Amino acid sequence: MIPVEEWLREDAPYGDITSELLIPPDLEGYGEIISRGKYVLCGIHHVAEVFAGCGVEFTPLFHDGDDVEEGDAVAGLRGNIRAMLLRERLALNILGHMTGIATATRRAVEIAERYGVRVAATRKTTPGLRALEKYAVSVGGGDTHRLTLSDHVLIKDNHIRAVGSLERALSCARNRSFVRKVEVEVETVEDALAAARMGADILMLDNFTPEMVRKTLDALKEEGLKERVIVEVSGGITMENLEEYASLRPDVISMGCLTHSVRVADFSLELR
Amino acid sequence: MIPVEEWLREDAPYGDITSELLIPPDLEGYGEIISRGKYVLCGIHHVAEVFAGCGVEFTPLFHDGDDVEEGDAVAGLRGNIRAMLLRERLALNILGHMTGIATATRRAVEIAERYGVRVAATRKTTPGLRALEKYAVSVGGGDTHRLTLSDHVLIKDNHIRAVGSLERALSCARNRSFVRKVEVEVETVEDALAAARMGADILMLDNFTPEMVRKTLDALKEEGLKERVIVEVSGGITMENLEEYASLRPDVISMGCLTHSVRVADFSLELR
Amino acid sequence: MIPVEEWLREDAPYGDITSELLIPPDLEGYGEIISRGKYVLCGIHHVAEVFAGCGVEFTPLFHDGDDVEEGDAVAGLRGNIRAMLLRERLALNILGHMTGIATATRRAVEIAERYGVRVAATRKTTPGLRALEKYAVSVGGGDTHRLTLSDHVLIKDNHIRAVGSLERALSCARNRSFVRKVEVEVETVEDALAAARMGADILMLDNFTPEMVRKTLDALKEEGLKERVIVEVSGGITMENLEEYASLRPDVISMGCLTHSVRVADFSLELR
Amino acid sequence: MIPVEEWLREDAPYGDITSELLIPPDLEGYGEIISRGKYVLCGIHHVAEVFAGCGVEFTPLFHDGDDVEEGDAVAGLRGNIRAMLLRERLALNILGHMTGIATATRRAVEIAERYGVRVAATRKTTPGLRALEKYAVSVGGGDTHRLTLSDHVLIKDNHIRAVGSLERALSCARNRSFVRKVEVEVETVEDALAAARMGADILMLDNFTPEMVRKTLDALKEEGLKERVIVEVSGGITMENLEEYASLRPDVISMGCLTHSVRVADFSLELR
Amino acid sequence: MIPVEEWLREDAPYGDITSELLIPPDLEGYGEIISRGKYVLCGIHHVAEVFAGCGVEFTPLFHDGDDVEEGDAVAGLRGNIRAMLLRERLALNILGHMTGIATATRRAVEIAERYGVRVAATRKTTPGLRALEKYAVSVGGGDTHRLTLSDHVLIKDNHIRAVGSLERALSCARNRSFVRKVEVEVETVEDALAAARMGADILMLDNFTPEMVRKTLDALKEEGLKERVIVEVSGGITMENLEEYASLRPDVISMGCLTHSVRVADFSLELR
Amino acid sequence: MIPVEEWLREDAPYGDITSELLIPPDLEGYGEIISRGKYVLCGIHHVAEVFAGCGVEFTPLFHDGDDVEEGDAVAGLRGNIRAMLLRERLALNILGHMTGIATATRRAVEIAERYGVRVAATRKTTPGLRALEKYAVSVGGGDTHRLTLSDHVLIKDNHIRAVGSLERALSCARNRSFVRKVEVEVETVEDALAAARMGADILMLDNFTPEMVRKTLDALKEEGLKERVIVEVSGGITMENLEEYASLRPDVISMGCLTHSVRVADFSLELR
Repeated sequence: MIPVEEWLREDAPYGDITSELLIPPDLEGYGEIISRGKYVLCGIHHVAEVFAGCGVEFTPLFHDGDDVEEGDAVAGLRGNIRAMLLRERLALNILGHMTGIATATRRAVEIAERYGVRVAATRKTTPGLRALEKYAVSVGGGDTHRLTLSDHVLIKDNHIRAVGSLERALSCARNRSFVRKVEVEVETVEDALAAARMGADILMLDNFTPEMVRKTLDALKEEGLKERVIVEVSGGITMENLEEYASLRPDVISMGCLTHSVRVADFSLELR
Repeated sequence: MIPVEEWLREDAPYGDITSELLIPPDLEGYGEIISRGKYVLCGIHHVAEVFAGCGVEFTPLFHDGDDVEEGDAVAGLRGNIRAMLLRERLALNILGHMTGIATATRRAVEIAERYGVRVAATRKTTPGLRALEKYAVSVGGGDTHRLTLSDHVLIKDNHIRAVGSLERALSCARNRSFVRKVEVEVETVEDALAAARMGADILMLDNFTPEMVRKTLDALKEEGLKERVIVEVSGGITMENLEEYASLRPDVISMGCLTHSVRVADFSLELR
Repeated sequence: MIPVEEWLREDAPYGDITSELLIPPDLEGYGEIISRGKYVLCGIHHVAEVFAGCGVEFTPLFHDGDDVEEGDAVAGLRGNIRAMLLRERLALNILGHMTGIATATRRAVEIAERYGVRVAATRKTTPGLRALEKYAVSVGGGDTHRLTLSDHVLIKDNHIRAVGSLERALSCARNRSFVRKVEVEVETVEDALAAARMGADILMLDNFTPEMVRKTLDALKEEGLKERVIVEVSGGITMENLEEYASLRPDVISMGCLTHSVRVADFSLELR
Repeated sequence: MIPVEEWLREDAPYGDITSELLIPPDLEGYGEIISRGKYVLCGIHHVAEVFAGCGVEFTPLFHDGDDVEEGDAVAGLRGNIRAMLLRERLALNILGHMTGIATATRRAVEIAERYGVRVAATRKTTPGLRALEKYAVSVGGGDTHRLTLSDHVLIKDNHIRAVGSLERALSCARNRSFVRKVEVEVETVEDALAAARMGADILMLDNFTPEMVRKTLDALKEEGLKERVIVEVSGGITMENLEEYASLRPDVISMGCLTHSVRVADFSLELR
Repeated sequence: MIPVEEWLREDAPYGDITSELLIPPDLEGYGEIISRGKYVLCGIHHVAEVFAGCGVEFTPLFHDGDDVEEGDAVAGLRGNIRAMLLRERLALNILGHMTGIATATRRAVEIAERYGVRVAATRKTTPGLRALEKYAVSVGGGDTHRLTLSDHVLIKDNHIRAVGSLERALSCARNRSFVRKVEVEVETVEDALAAARMGADILMLDNFTPEMVRKTLDALKEEGLKERVIVEVSGGITMENLEEYASLRPDVISMGCLTHSVRVADFSLELR
Repeated sequence: MIPVEEWLREDAPYGDITSELLIPPDLEGYGEIISRGKYVLCGIHHVAEVFAGCGVEFTPLFHDGDDVEEGDAVAGLRGNIRAMLLRERLALNILGHMTGIATATRRAVEIAERYGVRVAATRKTTPGLRALEKYAVSVGGGDTHRLTLSDHVLIKDNHIRAVGSLERALSCARNRSFVRKVEVEVETVEDALAAARMGADILMLDNFTPEMVRKTLDALKEEGLKERVIVEVSGGITMENLEEYASLRPDVISMGCLTHSVRVADFSLELR
């Protein structure tokens, strides 16, 4: 399901000229993909697709979601050397990107789950890679949140500005499909309460300070709305301030950095 | 030249259900893309492609390569609101990613050029985005290095292992096209000297300590090879250790992190 | 957003040989698309895409959702005759298919809304045309229901068989994304009640007789569950038996025939 | 040859979230596709393509063109349950659509062949599905007629209007490729005779009443033209009036409804 | 309708690095495409597509089918210089290839038409370019013959070998669509006569000597079959032996070399 | 890596109607691809891709680069006859085109290498086929030269005209990536010398007479520049004048005709 041919064409539109100069077309060998750090592995089955049908037998030695240590061989490759080297960089770029996301997500989840809070990703993904990135988030234990603009009703500030008022926006949203919830992004405690009273299923507290989050949660409890609405904290959450927000016990915290500022995981292919 | 339709389909395979519920199909308005930080802008003309032919007039207010400050409006949008909101996230994801790369590259270049050293990117890019990422590197003042496996001969450790010796590898490389240079990745000072003596056009010193780089450069000068070979330092170079390597004055320093561990630049779309 | 080039290639991989024999390349003229029946028009803006950029000025005379009568000109075309005739059949095939769906949906909605019941479509669509068909359903006033397997949790008999029990299935579904509802397809009144008690958001009563629907609704009311669960009737609903089911006042009735057994609407292109 | 990946992406752009919640990734099982009516089966080999290479062994139990009864298992599936359920709806949508067409065509052919008359389809097909639909027509025993605008010269009223006269149109058509016949669509008995006299290979009697068809056939016989020209009746032919036209013994009757107003055939997938 | 983006990507996957180094992004200018020989021009409107929407105004100065002389400017280009140079080679490659075919076809047609014989192309075309090549043949005055395997019934030696006999093959072919002719490839005079007697619409005399062609034509006349069958001569016809075959006056002579061994026409782009 | 499905669709958008009429769907057999001339075989592994996964076992009997004689069977095919015949023409068109190029290249290389001169191809290739054509050149022993506009800096007359002077052009080119050489196309002996003095890595002597080539080489030697610059002769070189230029011993001679005016090699498929 990943566009292997297209991505190979990006890296080798006219073949791998170095290997074609140096390596006999039929030379076979064995190699391993080695982890250069401690990670939550992700993408090993996608990498298997990269090597499918090219004369290289690819054997994953770990599964997505497994912990791997520096020096671990995560996969073995046996077969045509030219085919291996042609796909090496693509394979490592995929594996490094996805493992980077899963590892960061796991770290965030571990912090938040101590407080019973869920961690979610956003739509701030890399163009062309959303399916892979959302999958990596789920491998790391995160919630994939809205996948696309087509699958969830989320009323944001620009919508409210365009229709005139939160009330009018929520009223229009009543015509949504019966299978969809309605979420509202709010920027003040007052708007949060108003949206909850008007029947929003989910509140997204956008760029709230911890103090504002606390106030909102308290007020919702007071009005008996807390059980009827899901509270999501979003905007500017980083690994550094995550615990502070989590300790306030909203339902969900969403973090764009999980997918928009990925720190690659380091892997290499070693011929033996 | 960017796959706008494909990327929009990724974010809205069945349209933007929220805007379709809330916003009249013909509602028009004005909005701006606002920078939320101090960056080297990159991707503004790609974002223009995102809005082409959809009923939104897109006016860039800065050009790629310009410095922008927090709060700057980098583009104005006038026209159909639904069309704007449908493309908002895609546009911001592109702009944030490319600007992130250009900004980091500029920072690295500013450090290295004090020592007359060039900064280059690598093939450690995001699948599907290499052309955009290499372009962002050049906007930031970096060298794009090898673009693909098809356009430069670069002999790496796996090649040498497969053919048996550096000597044999370099001998095969003599049959390369007359328009190509030959680069050799080396892991020891001795190999660097050997490769230079055998006529390599470029040496890639892979994962060398500063001390090893210094030794290599000294030995090359001593043997009168320094002028005949380009010396590239690569592997594990970060913003933190860049200056230490640059001060040794190799010709080029290449940094995978410019493209594989991008820190997004923050932009938002505000309807006025 | 429709694949005009691909669909034209399907109908004219090597051009329109008749027009090329008979009609001078630069001949211009005027034509109209005429409705041959009484319909809820749908697809006129998609047809506009078919004629975009080919030297034909296309002017819709009605909008999607409008009622049109036999003999009404729904669009005017002025320009190159060859270009018009090359696209004629594709344009009419799209318009006829989408208008057929919108018209049938409107008819069903008119019956059901008398009882306050919503009509929904299903995933029984034509491969490659789902977005157009779901849009036509909404133009006809219907609910688009689940768009894809990715955007709604719907537990069906095959899932329950695979995991062993409804209870276990619903328990797994608790890990769904916080933005999703959970729907359960049930085949008996008892299962319906069980699923409602276990917290399903939506019940799909599959192939229930009217009597079974009535019993389910009564039992849900009795247990005070009616307000907490949405009841959807599905399976074997046709225009003929729709009113009988609607009069029982479930929340939603879904009808596969809206999209899987389309009766085309008849349009023709007349040169004047 | 069918776009399986594209059609799966239409139904599951981000995977099947229900199965991923409920069913273990490696769970295997056995299922069958069951016919829910009496049909001429069509598309079973296309459905085989849907399941190719996904870890499901697909065994057709009937062939295209076979009669199947309600309750017949038309195919067996053994293997990964997630893979089966991901493809279930696509497979059934294809099978239902093609079987619906083949079944209707067979019914029409059985009526017409009693009179020695051939039944043909038209270009009124579903965008993107013409190859499948024309194939289903042939499986049902029908003639596929013109496949595209590129493969047959068919002069219609709009052409004649554009060039000025039938005579001029037929004269231009003499320059056609030597491998092509020329067909003329006519709207009156007089035009039919004129076209036959001028050498048309095929006459398409468009929207003729039975009486007009009879007159045309009689006049052609009288003038000794009947053997030199093929007579096709077209426009407004339905299952209801087919026999009336067939009994007049034209050579061919073409019916758009075979492909433009398909009544789906009902199949289901049952896990055992 | 030509895949401009795909073909540009073939020639410039990462842009035109020379122009990007040398030419300011906004530099404008004027250039002309100059013919370097005497040709039948073909492809000028396809070249217009290459320059569409890139900031270059393209003005054809001749039309497809026109005679051009050495030194003639066939098109003018005004606008962005980088955009012009990026597309230069693609434009010239298309124009040279198509003009080469049209010019050769015209030459063959001029020879054959003196004898009232038609010249046709074959399916021996360049993969990916058949539509362009068949069009160029028609611009040169040739017959496009069968366009694809889907649009004409042509029984060849391999078919006859597979089914057992010419008779059986022709009998099967009676079930063809009523819009298709039947052509038979024969290798002996006897087979030609047999096929004609059995009702073939067209005979393809494959690799016949002129003497064999003459005998076949004489025998067909003698048996009164000449008027009922079209005689095509095929196989090994070159510009050199064309007249010898044409003088025997078969109906058609087909020449694979028109499209499989193209001699490019020479054009250049000159900036003024 | 070749677009087999797309190319098959070009030749059979609706299947092979002749084989479907004549040949039973399951008929199996054996056939061979026979060479009809003496060639340097090229493309046999690409042809293998054409037959992959279609029920035909394809066995190459020679490898790319082998000499084959008239009558040699270059490959054996065993399996489904319909599948074989559907792919026959595509397979032969590919094989004939690539073998034609490899054979012509080999002939040119044999002439030039007597003088120690290398033969190179150009970017004058067939749209969509460059990768195949450049590969065929290398199989014939030629140099592939610049593959695309993205991989080599080549300053041509239009660039110089646009920037004003050769000097300015070469000065801009200094900012190229450190992995690229710089080549300059020159039209006079003086310009050649100037470019060499200014540090061009490669000179392309464009449309030089043999006398001009000789003068350039002599002058370069005299100035001691000959060893520092590669001299390429280009423009108007044919098989006829190749030796005259080669005998002057430039480094490289490039010939557009290798790929832009291919003479097909003749192969046929014979069922046994």
